[in-house]
Amino acid sequence: MTAPAYRRLSVEERRGQLIDTALALFAHRPPEEVSLDEVAAAAGVSRPLVYRYFPGGKPQLYEEALGSAADELRECFAEPQSGPLTHRLSRALDRYLAFVDGHDAGFAALLRGGSAAETARTDAIVDGVRRAAAEQILLHMRVPEPGPRLRMMVRTWLAGVEAASLIWLDEGKQPPLDELRDWLVDHFVALLAATAAHDPQTAGITRAALAAERSDGAVGRLARRVVPVVEDSLHLL
Amino acid sequence: MTAPAYRRLSVEERRGQLIDTALALFAHRPPEEVSLDEVAAAAGVSRPLVYRYFPGGKPQLYEEALGSAADELRECFAEPQSGPLTHRLSRALDRYLAFVDGHDAGFAALLRGGSAAETARTDAIVDGVRRAAAEQILLHMRVPEPGPRLRMMVRTWLAGVEAASLIWLDEGKQPPLDELRDWLVDHFVALLAATAAHDPQTAGITRAALAAERSDGAVGRLARRVVPVVEDSLHLL
Repeated sequence: MTAPAYRRLSVEERRGQLIDTALALFAHRPPEEVSLDEVAAAAGVSRPLVYRYFPGGKPQLYEEALGSAADELRECFAEPQSGPLTHRLSRALDRYLAFVDGHDAGFAALLRGGSAAETARTDAIVDGVRRAAAEQILLHMRVPEPGPRLRMMVRTWLAGVEAASLIWLDEGKQPPLDELRDWLVDHFVALLAATAAHDPQTAGITRAALAAERSDGAVGRLARRVVPVVEDSLHLL
Repeated sequence: MTAPAYRRLSVEERRGQLIDTALALFAHRPPEEVSLDEVAAAAGVSRPLVYRYFPGGKPQLYEEALGSAADELRECFAEPQSGPLTHRLSRALDRYLAFVDGHDAGFAALLRGGSAAETARTDAIVDGVRRAAAEQILLHMRVPEPGPRLRMMVRTWLAGVEAASLIWLDEGKQPPLDELRDWLVDHFVALLAATAAHDPQTAGITRAALAAERSDGAVGRLARRVVPVVEDSLHLL
């Protein structure tokens, strides 16, 4: 049972092991339900040893586990700058949604708020991830100086992705992840087009992004599906 | 100074006056910064009198002020079931955004979370408003049994409206409210179309909604602005 306690780990290895263990526990249950004793037991070490590494106890351990999860989340949006924009977005969303799937209860507890473990510092970590994701997406649009409309569009879409992820968890992880991903990509395309109607900078980016799309890609698929829905409404043009 | 204290108010009137006074103070500053003494002074009554009405002190007063604001917000989405859907949505958003404008700091503090005044009960109040808004919108779509995709679409859009409202407050209330409102209506139309591409129920509702639109309305305006942006991309169809 306690064998792992006797493995010789360096200070950094032990710290990392405790954070990983805590994250695995915090991922599937609200922070209130995870005790420090449980983290110690799962890591095969004593409670005093956990305190030696994390003198702040559970709040500190939670915050560090969250910081480690935030690093992982930030990585989701790192993507090579090549290929159609919707392909890149689709791959980023695949990673993001896999993260949501793998940290379901912890993700929901954190974003729903109202948790006793929530502090100004944990809020700042979450906001940091949001900002990093928005920056990544704007980078992919190759805009050196994104205007307020474009920034609002990206952040609004990201808020929608978060909301949809929480609803998806509530609904017993339905629809299947790849359908949710495709819908969120389509949401992005639709919101980009709607914003292009209001903002010349976004219009320019949308034209450039569309020129790089392929007819068997996300935009082509979306367009072919939307046309039959709107084709009786040409009187509006 | 203290003249209002001597007005004879009934118990219900006094309660209402204290809640209105508290709400006016909580509207423009985070709850931490508003003291019970300040509420008493602004209402022209003594501190003990506030406690007589709200034995739970500031937390109770905050919660009741929030409940009163929630009632007001819920009213924003009540709208007669006639005319094009985008007109109704536009009027509801006018009221909602006027509320955000009039309760700026309190609205931001509440939705940003991390506030000491936030509890499971205040969270439940906020969630109640979200649910009521979603129900209202679904009612206007005349769907007796909305499927999961349509519900997810409406709730995702509402999350985007909240996020855009917070960004709007951060950006010094730019762009002007009517531009923000039009953009949010266009966001709704775009998201509805994107969802129609994935879901037959949403496709049916979208067709019916489009048939009721007028060419000088929101959808006509959006379509005429989007066409020039996408017209070079017919290769995708």
